[in-house]
Amino acid sequence: MKKTLVIVAHPDIARSTVNHTWARTLAAQEDRYTVHELYAAYPNGKIDVAAEQALIEAHGSVILQFPVYWFSCPPLLKQWFDSVFTHGWAFGSSATAFKGRKLGLAVSHGTPPQDYSHTGKIRHTLAETLIPFEIIANYIGAEYLPPFTFHALEFFTEEEIRANHDKMVAHAEQAAKDLLAHLEKFA
Amino acid sequence: MKKTLVIVAHPDIARSTVNHTWARTLAAQEDRYTVHELYAAYPNGKIDVAAEQALIEAHGSVILQFPVYWFSCPPLLKQWFDSVFTHGWAFGSSATAFKGRKLGLAVSHGTPPQDYSHTGKIRHTLAETLIPFEIIANYIGAEYLPPFTFHALEFFTEEEIRANHDKMVAHAEQAAKDLLAHLEKFA
Repeated sequence: MKKTLVIVAHPDIARSTVNHTWARTLAAQEDRYTVHELYAAYPNGKIDVAAEQALIEAHGSVILQFPVYWFSCPPLLKQWFDSVFTHGWAFGSSATAFKGRKLGLAVSHGTPPQDYSHTGKIRHTLAETLIPFEIIANYIGAEYLPPFTFHALEFFTEEEIRANHDKMVAHAEQAAKDLLAHLEKFA
Repeated sequence: MKKTLVIVAHPDIARSTVNHTWARTLAAQEDRYTVHELYAAYPNGKIDVAAEQALIEAHGSVILQFPVYWFSCPPLLKQWFDSVFTHGWAFGSSATAFKGRKLGLAVSHGTPPQDYSHTGKIRHTLAETLIPFEIIANYIGAEYLPPFTFHALEFFTEEEIRANHDKMVAHAEQAAKDLLAHLEKFA
């Protein structure tokens, strides 16, 4: 079975706890996962389209891992869709790149969980908020996996983050185990 | 009444017909609209947060104008949300920047219109696809206007675009008049 490609899009992963822990945990299983960090690969924002398309073709499932900022993905992942998913390759009558391939999300978010419900502040669940990604999967003929969504603790200041460091690391490590179990179900 | 700020986010507006026509039409009404082109203002992608916040504060309604690529906005507009909508300014208990301010979208899309329905390929309307932007408006306390959505003609090759140039310009000019009438309703 082909390895799963994990596209990680975090604009500052060195300062991230959750996404850094997930990327490390997945990368440690090197026979199963290839972890590809977009911001590290393209610090100037210019994506190598041919290299990205070849990477996808060499793998099986594709997981997009990112923190949800403003109810969507970080900008470089949006650039990745716009650049890499070309007509004739990802979509169009002759395109086959994603046909039968699984596409899934592994996302963290910092908004209070009670906000993400039909009666909460967001008025939608997190999975509903991510519907544009489900539409992309449908559009390119991929099988959309149920998103793995994880509530990171919301700390806005540097002080809060520092004070709660150990708690966040433990939280992130448990979530990394949950993520592996989630991906296992769809392998 | 304060002027309306139109944030235009098109990665290559010189080659755009629809968005270029809209921006030109809105900019011509300089007593009503300020047109701010993000990709022209920030060719290196580094957004001046203080300048953007001051620009919003100096205006009334804010309209985000962009082509819908992969069911969302171009990456620099996503960067704009992530950079400009800071805690304490756009959200948080003391934030007032958008309280009572109107926020609207003016978007073009190239997907066949029949795909955008509950029974079509997308399984959602275009307005539903744009729900993450409605969530942003709600989250920052802005009044979300009904999006102005416009179906651009889908041409994928340079040849098709060239062959249909006059038709596209006429189409875009009619849409610019419709956009002005739409914005008028909510002024």
